[in-house]
Amino acid sequence: MIKVGIIGATGYAGNELVRLLMNHPETELIWYGSKSYEGKKYADVYRNMFEITDDLCSGDDLEKLSQEADVVFTATPQGFLAGILTDSVLEKTKIIDLSADFRLKDVKTYEEWYKIEHKRPDLISKAVYGLCEINRHLIDDSVRLVANPGCYTTTSILALYPVVKDGIIDADSIIIDAKSGTSGAGRSAKTDNLFCEVNESIKPYGVGTHRHIPEIEEQLGYAKGDKIRLVFTPHLVPMERGILVTAYADLNDDISESSVRECYSRYYDNEKFVRLLDPGVFPQTRFTKCSNYVDINFRIEPRTNRLIVMATLDNLIKGAAGQAVQNMNLLFGLPESTGLEMVPVIM
Amino acid sequence: MIKVGIIGATGYAGNELVRLLMNHPETELIWYGSKSYEGKKYADVYRNMFEITDDLCSGDDLEKLSQEADVVFTATPQGFLAGILTDSVLEKTKIIDLSADFRLKDVKTYEEWYKIEHKRPDLISKAVYGLCEINRHLIDDSVRLVANPGCYTTTSILALYPVVKDGIIDADSIIIDAKSGTSGAGRSAKTDNLFCEVNESIKPYGVGTHRHIPEIEEQLGYAKGDKIRLVFTPHLVPMERGILVTAYADLNDDISESSVRECYSRYYDNEKFVRLLDPGVFPQTRFTKCSNYVDINFRIEPRTNRLIVMATLDNLIKGAAGQAVQNMNLLFGLPESTGLEMVPVIM
Amino acid sequence: MIKVGIIGATGYAGNELVRLLMNHPETELIWYGSKSYEGKKYADVYRNMFEITDDLCSGDDLEKLSQEADVVFTATPQGFLAGILTDSVLEKTKIIDLSADFRLKDVKTYEEWYKIEHKRPDLISKAVYGLCEINRHLIDDSVRLVANPGCYTTTSILALYPVVKDGIIDADSIIIDAKSGTSGAGRSAKTDNLFCEVNESIKPYGVGTHRHIPEIEEQLGYAKGDKIRLVFTPHLVPMERGILVTAYADLNDDISESSVRECYSRYYDNEKFVRLLDPGVFPQTRFTKCSNYVDINFRIEPRTNRLIVMATLDNLIKGAAGQAVQNMNLLFGLPESTGLEMVPVIM
Amino acid sequence: MIKVGIIGATGYAGNELVRLLMNHPETELIWYGSKSYEGKKYADVYRNMFEITDDLCSGDDLEKLSQEADVVFTATPQGFLAGILTDSVLEKTKIIDLSADFRLKDVKTYEEWYKIEHKRPDLISKAVYGLCEINRHLIDDSVRLVANPGCYTTTSILALYPVVKDGIIDADSIIIDAKSGTSGAGRSAKTDNLFCEVNESIKPYGVGTHRHIPEIEEQLGYAKGDKIRLVFTPHLVPMERGILVTAYADLNDDISESSVRECYSRYYDNEKFVRLLDPGVFPQTRFTKCSNYVDINFRIEPRTNRLIVMATLDNLIKGAAGQAVQNMNLLFGLPESTGLEMVPVIM
Repeated sequence: MIKVGIIGATGYAGNELVRLLMNHPETELIWYGSKSYEGKKYADVYRNMFEITDDLCSGDDLEKLSQEADVVFTATPQGFLAGILTDSVLEKTKIIDLSADFRLKDVKTYEEWYKIEHKRPDLISKAVYGLCEINRHLIDDSVRLVANPGCYTTTSILALYPVVKDGIIDADSIIIDAKSGTSGAGRSAKTDNLFCEVNESIKPYGVGTHRHIPEIEEQLGYAKGDKIRLVFTPHLVPMERGILVTAYADLNDDISESSVRECYSRYYDNEKFVRLLDPGVFPQTRFTKCSNYVDINFRIEPRTNRLIVMATLDNLIKGAAGQAVQNMNLLFGLPESTGLEMVPVIM
Repeated sequence: MIKVGIIGATGYAGNELVRLLMNHPETELIWYGSKSYEGKKYADVYRNMFEITDDLCSGDDLEKLSQEADVVFTATPQGFLAGILTDSVLEKTKIIDLSADFRLKDVKTYEEWYKIEHKRPDLISKAVYGLCEINRHLIDDSVRLVANPGCYTTTSILALYPVVKDGIIDADSIIIDAKSGTSGAGRSAKTDNLFCEVNESIKPYGVGTHRHIPEIEEQLGYAKGDKIRLVFTPHLVPMERGILVTAYADLNDDISESSVRECYSRYYDNEKFVRLLDPGVFPQTRFTKCSNYVDINFRIEPRTNRLIVMATLDNLIKGAAGQAVQNMNLLFGLPESTGLEMVPVIM
Repeated sequence: MIKVGIIGATGYAGNELVRLLMNHPETELIWYGSKSYEGKKYADVYRNMFEITDDLCSGDDLEKLSQEADVVFTATPQGFLAGILTDSVLEKTKIIDLSADFRLKDVKTYEEWYKIEHKRPDLISKAVYGLCEINRHLIDDSVRLVANPGCYTTTSILALYPVVKDGIIDADSIIIDAKSGTSGAGRSAKTDNLFCEVNESIKPYGVGTHRHIPEIEEQLGYAKGDKIRLVFTPHLVPMERGILVTAYADLNDDISESSVRECYSRYYDNEKFVRLLDPGVFPQTRFTKCSNYVDINFRIEPRTNRLIVMATLDNLIKGAAGQAVQNMNLLFGLPESTGLEMVPVIM
Repeated sequence: MIKVGIIGATGYAGNELVRLLMNHPETELIWYGSKSYEGKKYADVYRNMFEITDDLCSGDDLEKLSQEADVVFTATPQGFLAGILTDSVLEKTKIIDLSADFRLKDVKTYEEWYKIEHKRPDLISKAVYGLCEINRHLIDDSVRLVANPGCYTTTSILALYPVVKDGIIDADSIIIDAKSGTSGAGRSAKTDNLFCEVNESIKPYGVGTHRHIPEIEEQLGYAKGDKIRLVFTPHLVPMERGILVTAYADLNDDISESSVRECYSRYYDNEKFVRLLDPGVFPQTRFTKCSNYVDINFRIEPRTNRLIVMATLDNLIKGAAGQAVQNMNLLFGLPESTGLEMVPVIM
C-alpha cells in the first residue's frame, strides 16, 4: 500500500482527495493535514465521513510527514509549498502539488501574476507539469515533484491542444470564455461566496487578469512551438461543481468538420478520460460530474470560418483531486485509471 | 456473475440502478428496459454513460427477460408489475420491485390509496417487504419477490422503529413532516417540475393523502403490534436529491436523552448503513448524498415532553436503487454492502 | 414627506427597507446607517442601487439621527438598540425596531433565551408588538416604539391565531415545523452560509432552542388567555427568500372543515395582506415572493382529528421590512398598505 | 386609461406583462388571452395573483380584441401573429409583438432561420423594431406595429452598438458568448427544462444556429452601415432570470480605455435604463433583476488589443415585458419610464 498524506485536507479539493483515496485500492491515507482544524476529528469537519474515519486532523509539518508518507498531496495556498519545500523532503517523499507554485516554468511570469516572490525557483525545473494526457511520458517513478494543473487550465488546454499542435487554428486568435461552479472559489468564509450572493446570478470576474492565463499560454505555447497570447474570461455560475469552457479561434484554412474531428480523434480516441462527443452533441457539466472525464466537442461556424470548441469537466475531480490521483498512479507505476473509474453522477 | 435486468431503466431511480450495478463487482447488466426509448442507445438518453456502455434500451417483455436474468429490478409505474407478473416468471427469476405493487399486505388498503385494482392479490403474501435493517432475516435465497420500500417510507420507518418497538413513544401521536428533493417526482415532463416552478420555492403537497402513509402505518404497526394512525406531510424542496424527515411524538414516560439514545444504539450500532449521530449533531441531507447511509438523531423537547427525531437519506440510493441492490445482495448471499460502500459526496 | 433613517441598512433586511422606502410615496430616506460601510457609497455595497442613489452610508449615531428623522428603523443585532436607546431619543423620533429587543414583555424570558442582559427593561412596556393584523388598534400616532415581529413569528402567529383565539385547537398540542430561505441567516461571512454548504441540502437547526419560540408562545398565549408551550423546529432551505410554516395541533372537538374555514374567514377576510387560499390549494413560498402577503390554508386530517395549518410569506418583506413599513404607515396615519401593494413575483 | 389586451398571458413573459401592467398608472388590463387556459381564472394559473385579479382567461380572438383594446401585446409562438394579423386589426388597435414575426426586415432571412413561411411579408415594412434606446425617434403615435426585440438581442445590441457605430471595433470580429436563465426557455413541459435536468449544470445550445443571430446581425449592420457576420453562442444557466453577454471584438486601432468609455458615455449617459458601470466594476445579473435596467461595462485586454464588453439585463423585463411597456409608453406619448421605475431586487 502506498502511504499517502495530504496537507490542506479540509478545503473542498482536499475533501475530494480524501474521498478518492478512501476508494483507491492501493493507498493508505495516514495524514489529514489541516492547520485550521489540527487535533479535531476529520469527520467533525466533514460529517459525510462520520463512522467512515475516526482520524484526527494533523498539522502541516511537511518535514515530519515526508518521513512517513510515500507521497504527499499539497492542496495549499499559493506560495505555501515553495516556502517550505526542501531538497531533503524531496529525497524522502514525492510531492503532488495542487497549488500553482511549480506550474509556471518562468519564475518572472509567476511573480508577476501571483504578486509573490518565489522562494525556491531552483526547484521549478525539477517539477513536471502533470497534465497526464499531454505529459504522460514525463511522469514516472523518477519524478519527485508534480505540478498538478489548475481546473480552468486543464479544461482549456485539453480543449485546444490538438488543434493548436496541428496548426489548425491561429493560436493568437484564441478567446476562452470559461464558466465555473462555486466550489472553485474555495471554502473560506467570504461575503461574495454566500448562498444569497451567488445563487440566481452569473458574473464575470478577473477579466483579463486571472492567474490561470499564463499557465494556459505557456502550455499551449509548447504545443505551438512559440509564445502565444490569448483572451481568457472566467465567470462564476450558481452551481457547486463543474467547468465549461467555450473557446473560439480563427481557422487557419478552409477545413471540414470531419478533418477537425479526425485531428481530435487522433489525440483522444485512446484517452480513457477524454471523451470526444458525437457530432452535434454538446458538453454539459452534469455529464462529467463526480467523475474524472473531460467531455469535448466542437463546431465550425461556417459563416465566419471560426472554430468553437466546448469542454467540460468536474473542477474538483479532473480539475484537481482526480488528476492528482491520476498523477500518483503514473508516479507509482499503477494503471492510470486506478481508483478513478467513477461513472458520472447526473445529479 | 449475477445476470441482472432492469425494467424502467431510464427513470431517475433506474439510472441510479444502472450506475450502481456498473460498479457492483458481482453483477452483469444485460437488459436496460425502457419502453419509451426501446432501440435507442442508453448513453444517448443519459450522456454521462457515453463510452461507458454502448448497449441499447430493451423493451418491457418480462417473460423474455425472466429467461435471461437471475434477477429483475422493476422501477415502473404503480400497477404495471401486478398487471404482468406471472407464476412462471417468478419460477424463472427473482424480482425486486421498486414500485408499490407488493408493499402493502392489505389489498383493500392498496386499492383505496392507489385507486387501481390489484391484478395479482394472491402474490402479495409471497412478497417480502425489503427494508433490510428490519426484515433482513426474511430476505434470503428462497425469496422470489421483494417489495422495495419507498423513499419517504424508509426514512420514516427507520427514524421511528426503535422507539415504537420499545414503546418509548405513543405511536398514535406521531407526526411526520417530510421534505424531499425533486428527483422524487420523477423524470416525466410536467409543468410543475420545471426548473422555474421548483427553484426558489418550497411547498407542501398531498397533505394527508400521500400514498406512503399506509405503508408507514403498516410497518410501524407491526413494530407496535397494533394498528396505528399517524400524520404525514410531504414537502417539495428546491434541490435534486435527499430526504429529511422531522418526526414528532409524545413520550410515554419521563425518559432521559441517554435512555432514548441507548434504545437507538441497541438497534443501530451494528447497522452499517444507519448512522446514529453524536448528541447535538443534526442530520443534513448533503452528508448522505450519493451514499446508502441513513443519518438519524433525536432531541427530547423537555418543556413539552415530546421526542423530535430527524433522519436523512439519499432518496435515489437508500430510498430506491441502493436499497434494491442491498436486497439483491441478501437474496444472493453476498455481503450486504457489496457495491454500496460509497462515501457520501457533500456537493 | 416623512423623514426616515435606517440603522443597519446594509444587511439583507436593511436593503429591502431601502428598496421599499424608495418606492414609498410619502417618505424621504435621509440616513443609510451602516457601521461597517460608513462613508462608502451605498450603491457600492449594493450595486442594484447604482444611479438610483448616490448617498453615502452613515454611522449608527442614534442621538444625532433622532434629531433629523421622524422615524428610525433599526435592523441591528440583538441588544444593540436596548444598549443605546434613551428617553430623549424617543421624545424626538419614533423607532421601529426589527431586532428582538422589545418584543418579549417578560424581561427574564428575554435574558434567558438571548443570553444577554437587557439594558432598558423599563422601556419594554412602552413598546407595542407590531403584528399589525392582531395589534392594529394599539399602533397609532401616540406610539414611540414598535417591536417589529420576527419572520418565523409572524408566519406562525398568523397561521394559528384564529384557531387558538376561538379555542378550536388545543394550544398546548401545537407543533410548528418551519422552513426558511437563507437570507434569514443574514449577510455575515460564515462558512455555514456559503453557497456550497447551503445549496442542495436541507437541515434542521436550533431544534427546541430557537429564540423565536418564546415570542410565538407569548403572543399565542395572549390569544388563548393563558400560558402555552409549543414545539418549534426551524429548517434551512436552499433558497434565498421565503418561509413556510407547517403547523399541527389537536382539534378540541369534532369540527368540520367549513367551520374552521369560517373561523379563519372571520379574522382574515378583511385583511388585505392575509390571503386565505381556496380549499385544497396549499401555500407555496414563491406565490408571496417580493410581496407583503401571507398565504394561509389548512386541512383537517380526519383519521387523527388533527388540524394542519400551512402559511407562507416573504421573510424579508412581511417577515421584516414590509411589516416595518406597514407599522410606519399606521404610526403616521397613512393607509396601511401605502408603498406595499407589490404583486408577488413568482421567480 | 389605455385599454390593454394580452395574447399569450400565461407564458412567463406574459405573466410579467400582467404584473407590470397592474402596476402601471395609465393602463387597464382587459384581456388575459390564453388559449390553453381559456375560461379558467387567471389567478388559478398564477396563484401569486390570488385576490389581486378575479379575471378569467380569454382566448386568442385578435379580431374581437382589436375592437376593445387600444393596444395588444402578443407573446405568442413564432408565426402565430403573422398568420392572423390583418389590416383591419391594425386599423383598430396597435400591436406590440413579443415574438420574432416582424423583427427581421428581410423575409428570406426570416424564413431561412425560422423554417416557416411568413404569411404577411407585406406588413414587415410597417413594423418598427422597438429597441427604444436606438429607435426611439421612430416610435410614436403614428406607429401601429412594434416588433419587440428578443432578450439575447437587446443585451447584445446595446452592449455593442456604440463601438460598432463609432467604428471602434471590427464588427466582423465580434464573438458573443451569452448566458441565460431558464425562464427564457418558456413554460412548456419539456424534459430538458425539468429542475433535475437544469439545476447544477451549464450547457451551450443552438451553437451557431440560434435564431437571434440574424436579428443581432441586422441591427448591428445598420449601425455599421454594412452587412456583418458574427459568432453567437447561447448557454443555459441554472437560474431563473437574467442574461449576461460577454462579447469580444478586435479594436480597430490602439485606443485608450478612457476613449472607449467616452464613446459609451456619449450614447448612454442620458439613457435612464442603460447604466454604464464604474471602471473595474463588472455586471452581475442579480443587480438588474426584476428591473428594466441594462448594466454595461467593458475592458480592453491590452496584450491582445481586444475589447471585452459585458452586459446584463433581466430577460423577462428589459428582455421582454418591460421593453414592451417602454414601447407602449412611447406609442402613447407617456413618459418612457412610466410603470418601469422598479429598483432591482438582488435576490
